[in-house]
Amino acid sequence: MPQYKLCYFNLRGWAEPARQLFKLAHVEFEDVRIENGTPEWEALKPKTPFGQLPFLTVDGFEIPQSAAILRYLGRKFGYAGKTPEEEAWVDAIVDQFKDFVTPLRQIIMAQRGGDAAEIQRVKTDVFEPARYGFFKILNGILEKSQSGFLVGNSVTWADLVIADIITTMKKLGVFDVAAEGNKKLVQFREKVNAIPEIKEHNETRPDSVV
Amino acid sequence: MPQYKLCYFNLRGWAEPARQLFKLAHVEFEDVRIENGTPEWEALKPKTPFGQLPFLTVDGFEIPQSAAILRYLGRKFGYAGKTPEEEAWVDAIVDQFKDFVTPLRQIIMAQRGGDAAEIQRVKTDVFEPARYGFFKILNGILEKSQSGFLVGNSVTWADLVIADIITTMKKLGVFDVAAEGNKKLVQFREKVNAIPEIKEHNETRPDSVV
Repeated sequence: MPQYKLCYFNLRGWAEPARQLFKLAHVEFEDVRIENGTPEWEALKPKTPFGQLPFLTVDGFEIPQSAAILRYLGRKFGYAGKTPEEEAWVDAIVDQFKDFVTPLRQIIMAQRGGDAAEIQRVKTDVFEPARYGFFKILNGILEKSQSGFLVGNSVTWADLVIADIITTMKKLGVFDVAAEGNKKLVQFREKVNAIPEIKEHNETRPDSVV
Repeated sequence: MPQYKLCYFNLRGWAEPARQLFKLAHVEFEDVRIENGTPEWEALKPKTPFGQLPFLTVDGFEIPQSAAILRYLGRKFGYAGKTPEEEAWVDAIVDQFKDFVTPLRQIIMAQRGGDAAEIQRVKTDVFEPARYGFFKILNGILEKSQSGFLVGNSVTWADLVIADIITTMKKLGVFDVAAEGNKKLVQFREKVNAIPEIKEHNETRPDSVV
């Protein structure tokens, strides 16, 4: 088995689904956590492949970008879809999520700014329409799903990404699928988080808002 | 061979590298082009997988999201990298490009707005730092490349995506690698566009600014 090292900030964020994949696959990895804004990070930054985190090291070979890391590990460990068509849908769902990150970031930045009128404006004009569209897609996929997972008949790395962002959105106070009565997404998150390895990981991990 | 149908607006945009992949692989496909803002598109929109274009149809099976389509075709046709590690780098480069699309969109929107001060503000504060960072990464990759391609020793779908966006940025007037004297990227674009199938495709395609 190769030596894996996953390097990220001390957050769930873009690395958490990769940490969960290692746990799912019962594969050891070094979970390196860097504090943002420290001299340690400033010294490491220019040595990373793209000047940013996360990056994965596989026997010394570095892979940057969170989705590239997840796809690589998902395929190695058998959580990337079982056919080229399933793999394409896993990819498409995560890309759709990444498109949703831009409006999600906008509401987070507005919240940090603290201007109530601006928060409301971003929420009404930007975040809610994007959130509605994205969740409509997810609900449509889950309605057709026989397994309760997003793609095929077993868990994939797309499930881990989506279940985790639902948790993050609740923690941020920007959206709560349970409060909205979105049963499909509530059931979906519970299904993913009830997988024994994920349950144990989530109960013992260093937690964070994002 | 399956029946392929690629459905997109009448633009290069997010579909052009997929069209080029079909040409590279000498695989027939139906190049469906929809005019945006027409009743035809309004009628089609709710029937698409994610309410948007492009989507690919493979013997009736639909795949949305441009990078998912490109990866699927790239792997089918042998232009996705030759090892899992090469595939991960192809993915990572395209994800890095997709992160760059947000600031690229901001300068495009500012240009459309037509306010000179706002254009300058977005250019200085948003677009140029992002463009500098992204091109620094590309130059670093090309400096280490033995082949002149971004990953491995032959063309991949990441090369098609990056070569096309360099062309688009010039057409939009937001950045010209040749005017900047960026020899590595000029050579790279020329190398990709000199591949006979790409050359023929680019000379005969319906052209557009984006």
